[in-house]
Amino acid sequence: MGCFSVIAILSGGVGGARLAAGFAEVAREEVTIIVNTADDEEFYGLHVSPDVDTVLYTLSGMGDWERGWGIGGDTFRCNEMLGRLGLENWFKIGDADLAMSLYRSLMLRQGHRLTEVVERARRALGVKARILPMSDDRVRTMVVTESAVLPFQQYFVKLRCEPKVLGVVFDGIEGARPTEEVLEALKTAEVIVIAPSNPVVSIGPILSLRGVRELIRKSGAERLAVSPIIGGKTVKGPADRMLAALGIEPTAVGVYKLYSDIIDIMVLDTEDSKLAPLIEGDGKRCIVTSTLMHNRDEAARLARTILDHVGRI
Amino acid sequence: MGCFSVIAILSGGVGGARLAAGFAEVAREEVTIIVNTADDEEFYGLHVSPDVDTVLYTLSGMGDWERGWGIGGDTFRCNEMLGRLGLENWFKIGDADLAMSLYRSLMLRQGHRLTEVVERARRALGVKARILPMSDDRVRTMVVTESAVLPFQQYFVKLRCEPKVLGVVFDGIEGARPTEEVLEALKTAEVIVIAPSNPVVSIGPILSLRGVRELIRKSGAERLAVSPIIGGKTVKGPADRMLAALGIEPTAVGVYKLYSDIIDIMVLDTEDSKLAPLIEGDGKRCIVTSTLMHNRDEAARLARTILDHVGRI
Repeated sequence: MGCFSVIAILSGGVGGARLAAGFAEVAREEVTIIVNTADDEEFYGLHVSPDVDTVLYTLSGMGDWERGWGIGGDTFRCNEMLGRLGLENWFKIGDADLAMSLYRSLMLRQGHRLTEVVERARRALGVKARILPMSDDRVRTMVVTESAVLPFQQYFVKLRCEPKVLGVVFDGIEGARPTEEVLEALKTAEVIVIAPSNPVVSIGPILSLRGVRELIRKSGAERLAVSPIIGGKTVKGPADRMLAALGIEPTAVGVYKLYSDIIDIMVLDTEDSKLAPLIEGDGKRCIVTSTLMHNRDEAARLARTILDHVGRI
Repeated sequence: MGCFSVIAILSGGVGGARLAAGFAEVAREEVTIIVNTADDEEFYGLHVSPDVDTVLYTLSGMGDWERGWGIGGDTFRCNEMLGRLGLENWFKIGDADLAMSLYRSLMLRQGHRLTEVVERARRALGVKARILPMSDDRVRTMVVTESAVLPFQQYFVKLRCEPKVLGVVFDGIEGARPTEEVLEALKTAEVIVIAPSNPVVSIGPILSLRGVRELIRKSGAERLAVSPIIGGKTVKGPADRMLAALGIEPTAVGVYKLYSDIIDIMVLDTEDSKLAPLIEGDGKRCIVTSTLMHNRDEAARLARTILDHVGRI
């Protein structure tokens, strides 16, 4: 008990951030969150990094838990004024939230790596857990729809996930490298958690980075994934529709199949308890528990249940 | 009466913006405001243009008349968060205000001239008067103090004008050109007004641009200046101390002497009526009236008095 050092969490935005906050609260060990950056986008000349910021805000306690993104109580005056000046402003960046993108863009222009920028920001915000962008290189999720190939945020925010998805491309993924920090975290991790984030566009890019999937496959860590699909539906976001569009069964089993070569344990919601035998029949273990994280307490409870199960509490 | 077309106003921030708003309200003619850009600065990688924005906001009715700068009712969440992230945030940019700097920086990076950016912005904000940055080229006021040479905003905002001023340098002024729009406005103007702005750091850079002073000197327009010094004190800002530091009498007469070769009429506050004979003795006319502009009505009244005096109302 308590004799291991690193819990590594692979995370996208909301679901991952919540589970990470839960682990950060209950684990006595170092928690490292490896965060998707393929959702990053340029707005108004600023580098916006939605998943990283959601993790930062959620872990610092500044986040808007209810809404899932942005800073609690933030205002949108800058966004409104940009609209008044005739710019597209469908990507709603809050006023305080904008400071993070200004800060990041400034630091990047000064030659810092994205990893360093996030490290400084999390320290400034008093976050104890390490937050690692999956890569310092540019990767951009492009959503192939019937009528166009769309940058992810256009599909996700501007078009509210309405266009039918034919496929997803991670532009730049071949040339992108996971950072040394990410590789080190995965190598030293004794527990690797794939958060309940979108398997296609949040976890997909991380696992597609050169060497990452193999590293997890060969890892001696306890490796588990929490299903973001409950009862055939995603808690938040378009994961269910995306999975279906890509020919993957939009269930916890469908998610499991995406990770079957790299996990030992699948965490299912109690609503999906009947699916456990299908996964156990494949030689894996299941944790069946409530996976909803409406608040910080529920996130902590889920993290505790997981740690308890892997003998770490 | 009313048969002329252009009133050109040379302006810095607050005082100039208020008088310009007065003219914009009462004049039937085209009002063009030529605005100092030597106060411009880079903050967080953004091009901030305080005088131009003060004019834009004051003329659009969005301005904070009381405070003199920024947008009425603006919030400062972004500014606070930048501080929380460890950046210097003594230059208080409001949240809506920030949108203008984001917009400007974006447009400039896309290759637009500053003049075009301001033209688009003033149209977007419904401002009828033309607002012309004095130059599209970079000029930066540097304040020479006993201990350091300071960028203007550092002297003005961060150090609250406290250091003793030894001199002022307009970095880049030799290579900077007034825009074609500025030259055209001055050539076609039938009334040229030097606003009650700081003669050294607001009006000084405009008049120092190649050809501008000569153009006004040779102009057939009615040329007048409104003193920013009343009773030996500046209404706002460090003009009085700056004048004194530079060996210029900090009175309306001292200001007059700076402009004596390029104006026909000096506008003095009633408090300074006793100074009128000194200026009239130099062969110039004086308008003695209340020059304080606490609100939009007083600004309109002052503009009307001036237009009335030059036979244009």
